[in-house]
Amino acid sequence: MATIKQVAQHAGVSVATVSRALNKSGYVKKETQDKIDKAIQELNYRPNETARTLYKRQSRMIGLLLPDMSNPFFTVVARGVEDEAMAMGYHIIIGNGDGNDEKELAYLNTFNVHNCSGIIASQLSSKETFDSFKSYNMPFVLLDRVYEDHEFVETNHYKGGQLQAQAVINGKAQSVLILEQDLNYKSFRERFNGAKLMLDEAGITYVSANELSLTEDDLLNLIKEHDIDSIICSNDVGAFNVMSILYNHQYKVPDDIQVVGYDDIPLSRTYSPSLTTIHQPAYLIGQKACQQLIKQLEGKQREHHQILDVTLVERQSTRRD
Amino acid sequence: MATIKQVAQHAGVSVATVSRALNKSGYVKKETQDKIDKAIQELNYRPNETARTLYKRQSRMIGLLLPDMSNPFFTVVARGVEDEAMAMGYHIIIGNGDGNDEKELAYLNTFNVHNCSGIIASQLSSKETFDSFKSYNMPFVLLDRVYEDHEFVETNHYKGGQLQAQAVINGKAQSVLILEQDLNYKSFRERFNGAKLMLDEAGITYVSANELSLTEDDLLNLIKEHDIDSIICSNDVGAFNVMSILYNHQYKVPDDIQVVGYDDIPLSRTYSPSLTTIHQPAYLIGQKACQQLIKQLEGKQREHHQILDVTLVERQSTRRD
Repeated sequence: MATIKQVAQHAGVSVATVSRALNKSGYVKKETQDKIDKAIQELNYRPNETARTLYKRQSRMIGLLLPDMSNPFFTVVARGVEDEAMAMGYHIIIGNGDGNDEKELAYLNTFNVHNCSGIIASQLSSKETFDSFKSYNMPFVLLDRVYEDHEFVETNHYKGGQLQAQAVINGKAQSVLILEQDLNYKSFRERFNGAKLMLDEAGITYVSANELSLTEDDLLNLIKEHDIDSIICSNDVGAFNVMSILYNHQYKVPDDIQVVGYDDIPLSRTYSPSLTTIHQPAYLIGQKACQQLIKQLEGKQREHHQILDVTLVERQSTRRD
Repeated sequence: MATIKQVAQHAGVSVATVSRALNKSGYVKKETQDKIDKAIQELNYRPNETARTLYKRQSRMIGLLLPDMSNPFFTVVARGVEDEAMAMGYHIIIGNGDGNDEKELAYLNTFNVHNCSGIIASQLSSKETFDSFKSYNMPFVLLDRVYEDHEFVETNHYKGGQLQAQAVINGKAQSVLILEQDLNYKSFRERFNGAKLMLDEAGITYVSANELSLTEDDLLNLIKEHDIDSIICSNDVGAFNVMSILYNHQYKVPDDIQVVGYDDIPLSRTYSPSLTTIHQPAYLIGQKACQQLIKQLEGKQREHHQILDVTLVERQSTRRD
């Protein structure tokens, strides 16, 4: 496959000139245009379609508000939004809300000032912020942390919690520690309830603690006190942290204690031992949210509530028969 | 500290109304304004300064082009750019070039169409793309992958390579495998040269291989053939991959083979064993690049070439005396 660079070399012009000629986006001399057309024909060059779309359509903006871009899960979500937006001729302005309502409102203002066509937001810090976003009457899709009365894309968190419990049950769990996060979030609450129900049904005892406020000593004390042999974590990054503490205190994973994560971020495959976890289709969440928003702003028919499936990925951090 | 939400509740109005009142960004009734002022006084509320800056200054745009946002190193760089931009009253449009020159040029066009004040770009795929960027005559700063004749922010890669070698020498290396990436990149080439020089001076033998084309079998064969006891990796994500292969083939890290990474991404602390690596100040790189760009577009004095320091972080994946 010929590249734009080869076309430029063949025609004896710069890459920028070929790009302008291809996209009719600036002045190109007739003579130069002819040289470029000849080079394109001789090299059988075909322009990158995604790049072409961007030139052809009027570029429009979508505001994307995430809680924290440095969490690998949200990075993959953002990538899904961006790729889909680009393919549809849109661009994104990205912002990190950091769970701070004033930052979230400041970004809302920015999206408005820059005439964004619509907004995709994840995990707004409060119902009040959500109401402010709605009050602007811009097309708007929520993801991951959702309110029932608005359009959203999320995953089946209840099933995810059940699958986490299933993973430790498969590894003959006797005494489980469930590390939850803020249960005011519907997503975390549903995972927690899913896991509890499954363990209750299997007659397995468990204790729980909030992962965000748990110190290393708290964790070690809980393990000793309750003779913990399995830990269910609220996400993969938290699971790495737990496994690191276990490693430093000579607990073997999974022989002494098995560990389950949540998210299936790319690094969960290359941790040693590799992490058993719940696969959330992060990239697809981003794509679907972007498609839904674009349908919304074009006034097209669409599902208002999309709930995507999750799956259990069994790796080395849980025991097998 | 009172929050904007508490002010809204106290005044009996919505958060959006308080936000409008604070920022004079829309119509607020005199009576409502008085209620809000009273609530602010009674609760001793102080607005978030970053959020205020965003409202007060005219919001302007900076285009940020990264090779791949899903690499944790670049995510942290992006965060540094974004936070600094926000504090200075700018916003970023972010794009992933994926090392594809046509995508890079399409983003360049987008940044231009949206009247970006300037551009920060990392790892443009070729000198030709770089020349196209320059031809637009927009303020423009490079980071990480740089060309000597343009403004940039980078780190001291040569010293980084030396420190990687120092880490394995500290752990009594006898036979080292250096995993490099594309040596056409100045950054990778300098790291490689730094490590080689240091090992040469210490009289330690080494072999090298390209990490990107290396299969699991290739790696295992190299280890056996050369009786490798130390591996220098080109970045942390690559080091996790190597440690995962070693784990699956019963090599103990660091007793049998010690491993050194590069970047010091957040997860290198919680890998088991935790990763000895070279700390690149990713967040600071982003901040400095953004500061330099804003100085450039305001016509202020500045250093044109900023080279930031790197440090060795010794953790559990290398041996100690």
